[in-house]
Amino acid sequence: MNSQLLSQIQNGEPLAVARAITRVERGGNDARNLIRALFPYTGRADIIGVTGAPGTGKSTLVNALAKEFRTREKRVAIIAVDPSSPFTGGALLGDRFRMQDLAGTGIFIRSMASRGQLGGLAAAVSDAILVLDAAQFDVILIETVGAGQGEVDIAKHAHTTIVLEAPGLGDDIQALKAGILEIADVLVVNKADRDGANATAAALEMNLNLNPDKNAWRPPVLKTIALQGKGIGELADAIAAHQKYLGENHLRAKKEAARFNDELRELLQRELLHKKLQNVAAEQWQTWIDEITTRRRDVYAIAEEILNG
Amino acid sequence: MNSQLLSQIQNGEPLAVARAITRVERGGNDARNLIRALFPYTGRADIIGVTGAPGTGKSTLVNALAKEFRTREKRVAIIAVDPSSPFTGGALLGDRFRMQDLAGTGIFIRSMASRGQLGGLAAAVSDAILVLDAAQFDVILIETVGAGQGEVDIAKHAHTTIVLEAPGLGDDIQALKAGILEIADVLVVNKADRDGANATAAALEMNLNLNPDKNAWRPPVLKTIALQGKGIGELADAIAAHQKYLGENHLRAKKEAARFNDELRELLQRELLHKKLQNVAAEQWQTWIDEITTRRRDVYAIAEEILNG
Repeated sequence: MNSQLLSQIQNGEPLAVARAITRVERGGNDARNLIRALFPYTGRADIIGVTGAPGTGKSTLVNALAKEFRTREKRVAIIAVDPSSPFTGGALLGDRFRMQDLAGTGIFIRSMASRGQLGGLAAAVSDAILVLDAAQFDVILIETVGAGQGEVDIAKHAHTTIVLEAPGLGDDIQALKAGILEIADVLVVNKADRDGANATAAALEMNLNLNPDKNAWRPPVLKTIALQGKGIGELADAIAAHQKYLGENHLRAKKEAARFNDELRELLQRELLHKKLQNVAAEQWQTWIDEITTRRRDVYAIAEEILNG
Repeated sequence: MNSQLLSQIQNGEPLAVARAITRVERGGNDARNLIRALFPYTGRADIIGVTGAPGTGKSTLVNALAKEFRTREKRVAIIAVDPSSPFTGGALLGDRFRMQDLAGTGIFIRSMASRGQLGGLAAAVSDAILVLDAAQFDVILIETVGAGQGEVDIAKHAHTTIVLEAPGLGDDIQALKAGILEIADVLVVNKADRDGANATAAALEMNLNLNPDKNAWRPPVLKTIALQGKGIGELADAIAAHQKYLGENHLRAKKEAARFNDELRELLQRELLHKKLQNVAAEQWQTWIDEITTRRRDVYAIAEEILNG
């Protein structure tokens, strides 16, 4: 790999970093070679995941938090993972507001959209994190839309995971069902000037009390009004406290091991399938699918034939 | 397989059906044999996916819709896919309310939780659908929490996918970013007695206008108040209209082919990885992960070694 490009990325030059992320998004051998060159320079950044349902005010909070870290002399990057439709235009519009809000702050921001293939997205996000890590950003904020398992998988690979709630998103049972409490290191009730903020915070505390693992880190429940910047300093402090806890208990390495364990398994699955099917003609595959849709053979029987073939 | 059990399932006896779903959830050879025996009797049920963010009132709407189909002399089953935490207790509490609401209606309901492994959950849900299909349910409602890619993957395998919105879930851009519009066959603004219902419906219509494929089915945008049963008859009619459209345009078979295509690929991935790693000692795997976490080698380099090994 071009050593000038490598040093531009390592110096965090925005254009070089943006281009490198585009290359890892495209995948293939070029992406692999890039990651191979950058990987030895990674491992220093604090990776912070922020997740929660639509309407909790994630983007506003992430922007405010990024600015707070800037005032603390940190170099900050944001990856906004967005399973947007290619035709809604929502992402584009939302991005434009954000970009304006961050203009002149020196904060690097990048949107990554799924375009339907989640395996590919998760891998691309992982590789983009490595690029930003090698580019010497101190803090990498990974923001994921939605409370689905796919987004949770991405957020859980962060060193510190922040789960957002907001009052008035429907009945509490529903909100808690989102099932992301167990991955939270810090819980935030945003839009805390709304009715019901205290009730939402109390419901979260109650749920934490049900956690049988009493020796583990207990996620603090914080209230913020991100739009007014309220509570953001406290949130940054809570994140720092969690990072300290990770370091003191040798848990940062454990989190990294879990992240790379999942990445390796997913990469192997994709590669193995690709290899297995590369000599299968499209007509043959279609015949198999037809056999299933017409109920002549089931999925397991076809899989057996392919695996033994 | 026991022919008495087979006929009990085919007669839709609730206990036999529930036990069969437990068996497919456990996976393994027993699950495969069960699916193999039932598969020839599947393909008749209408599979309807319902998805949307927390707070949109999915469970209430699904219950109301199930009852509406009952009044239309349909046999109805519900699968509530729930990525709940094992320790929040939210699912359990919510389920109890639902069960009471459905008591005596003859509607079969089953919750399926991810417990962390989405691949496994998607496969288990697919197999549970086959069990219910073989058990001669006319309508199978698949309800998924959240707007994440994983949930979308499950919902998109339905013949008809309903996407729920509700007014007041935060700014419209955020709500539309959920990125599930493109998989919707029917759009529903639930809680339509709230302020902003017309604006939410108008925003959805506007987004549909951006869809370049003018010849395709245009999802109707309906308003419901599920808690009062309002608009549920119209929703059932819209679903019936979509099913009719699928049949007339030979699209039902196409949807089934897409579903089984994805299922077959995912099954092959899991099996290939399992096969590849069955002779890898845990210590060897740990050594590889250590090499990655200490940045001596990257994920791609380790994968290459395993694939060539």
